[in-house]
Amino acid sequence: MSFREDLRARIEATGSVVSVGLDPDPDRLPDAVADHDLPRWAFNRRIIDATHEHAACYKPNAAFYEDADGWRALQETVAYAHGKGVPVLLDAKRGDIGNTARQYATALDPEGLDADAITVNPYLGRDSLEPFLSRDAGVVVLARTSNAGGADFQNLEVGNDKHLYEYVAQRCAEWDRESAADVFLVVGATTPDELEAVRELVPDLPFLVPGVGAQGGDAEAAVEYGLADGVGLVNSSRGIIFAGEDARDPSDYFSAAGDAARRLKRRLDEFR
Amino acid sequence: MSFREDLRARIEATGSVVSVGLDPDPDRLPDAVADHDLPRWAFNRRIIDATHEHAACYKPNAAFYEDADGWRALQETVAYAHGKGVPVLLDAKRGDIGNTARQYATALDPEGLDADAITVNPYLGRDSLEPFLSRDAGVVVLARTSNAGGADFQNLEVGNDKHLYEYVAQRCAEWDRESAADVFLVVGATTPDELEAVRELVPDLPFLVPGVGAQGGDAEAAVEYGLADGVGLVNSSRGIIFAGEDARDPSDYFSAAGDAARRLKRRLDEFR
Repeated sequence: MSFREDLRARIEATGSVVSVGLDPDPDRLPDAVADHDLPRWAFNRRIIDATHEHAACYKPNAAFYEDADGWRALQETVAYAHGKGVPVLLDAKRGDIGNTARQYATALDPEGLDADAITVNPYLGRDSLEPFLSRDAGVVVLARTSNAGGADFQNLEVGNDKHLYEYVAQRCAEWDRESAADVFLVVGATTPDELEAVRELVPDLPFLVPGVGAQGGDAEAAVEYGLADGVGLVNSSRGIIFAGEDARDPSDYFSAAGDAARRLKRRLDEFR
Repeated sequence: MSFREDLRARIEATGSVVSVGLDPDPDRLPDAVADHDLPRWAFNRRIIDATHEHAACYKPNAAFYEDADGWRALQETVAYAHGKGVPVLLDAKRGDIGNTARQYATALDPEGLDADAITVNPYLGRDSLEPFLSRDAGVVVLARTSNAGGADFQNLEVGNDKHLYEYVAQRCAEWDRESAADVFLVVGATTPDELEAVRELVPDLPFLVPGVGAQGGDAEAAVEYGLADGVGLVNSSRGIIFAGEDARDPSDYFSAAGDAARRLKRRLDEFR
C-alpha cells in the first residue's frame, strides 16, 4: 500500500489525525530515562507506549538524533513504532542535489532507516527531490511553514498575484501526479487564511499542519483545510511529549503525554 | 578570529581557494580502507593527508555520515582537519524552525561537532537562521544552486525584475551586517552569468562556488566573481576524492587525490 493509503487505514483505525512529533530535546528528558544507555530511545519508547492509540503517525525530528547514539535511538524508535502499527514520517527537511539527495533518500529504504515518509525543502527544485519522488513513500514538501519568518521568502509574489508558497503547492500537485510517491504539503496552522488558500489551489494533496498546540495555531482550520478526502496530519510535538512536565507526580509523566495526545485527537475530531 | 579571517589566513598560507568536499560514498570507497573499523574516517584521514597543503577548507557533506558510525567518522574527520590547521565547513543545508534550528546549530559548538561554518537553506526565512547567525561562525546560505532544477524556484521573478536568488542574496548582505556570523553565499559555477549578477548585487559577500569539476562549471568565472576581497571558496568533491579511481596502481589512490587538489589550486590560481 502507498503511504497515503497506509495513513488512511491508520486514521480510520484510530479516529486520529494526530502526528506526534518526537523531538527528545536532551535538556528536557525526565530523570526516569537519564540512566538508560540510550535515553532518547528509552523516552520515545515510553512516549509511544503511552500515545500510540491516539497517533496517526510519529514524526521524529532528525535534528535531535544527529550523533552516534542518536542514530541508534532513531532506528530503535522507527522499528518500535512500526511494531505498534504506526507509520513514521522523518522530519528532516532535506534538500540537496544529485548523489547527496540520493544518499538522504536511503532513509526511506528498509535497509536504511525504513521511514515511511520524509519532509523535504523545495528550494533546490524538482530534480533535487527526484530520489524521494521516485520511491513508494510519502514526500512532504515545505510550502508555508509555521514560523513568523516563513513569510520572508514564501510570501513573495512570483507573478499572477501568487505567492511563492502557492506556486510551490501547485508544482507539488504536478509532482504528485507524475511520480511514484504520495506528495503532501507542510502548511502551518498559524496562518488559517493561507491554509484555506492552499487548499483551494490543490484540492487533492493532504497537508501536514504544524503549529497547533505549542505554537497556538487554529485547530479548526487545520482540520477543515488540512485533510484531503479524509487524509492529513496535524502535528504536535512538545505539547504532547513534554506534557508530563506539568504532572504533580513524576510517575504520571508518560500518562500525561497519553492524555495530551487523546485530548488533541478529540479536539480535532470535533471538526472532522 | 572570525571564520572569514580564519579563511583569509588559510588562503594566504596555501595560495588555494579550493574547498575539498568530503563525500565518502560507501559504494565508492577503495579496498584499502574497507577493513577499517570506520572506513569513512580512514578514507577521509588519508584524503586529508594527501590534500591538506592545497585545501583552503574541507567540506564534509552531512548526508554521508547519517548513521551511528557515520557521526563518529565525522567527528574524527573534523578534529583531524583542525589538527592540520584547515577550517571545516559542514555541508548540511539546514533550515528548520525554533528549537530545531537551535539544535542543528550546536554542530558549530566546540562541545558539538565543532565545525567552523555550515551551509543553510533560506526557504524558512530569517528567524529560522537566527541560531546560526548569532554565532561567531560562517553561515553559507544557498542562493543559486548548481543543479539544473535550481532554476525551478530560485529563478522566479519576485518583483522589480529580480530573481528569487538575487533577492535572497540581498537579504543575506543585510544579515551579514546585522549578525555575529560571517555570511557567505552558495552560487553555482554552472551559471557564470548568474555568478556575475549576484556579485554585482552583493560586492562584499564571499561565495562558495560548487559545480567546478564533476559538474563542468566555469573555473574562471568562479574565481573572478566568487571572491570578495580575496576570500571565497571553489568546491570540488568527487573530482578530488575519487580521482584515484583512475590510478593504474591502487597504491597511487590517495596521491592521485593530492594531485587533483593541486591541479585545481593551480588552475584557479591563474585567475586570482
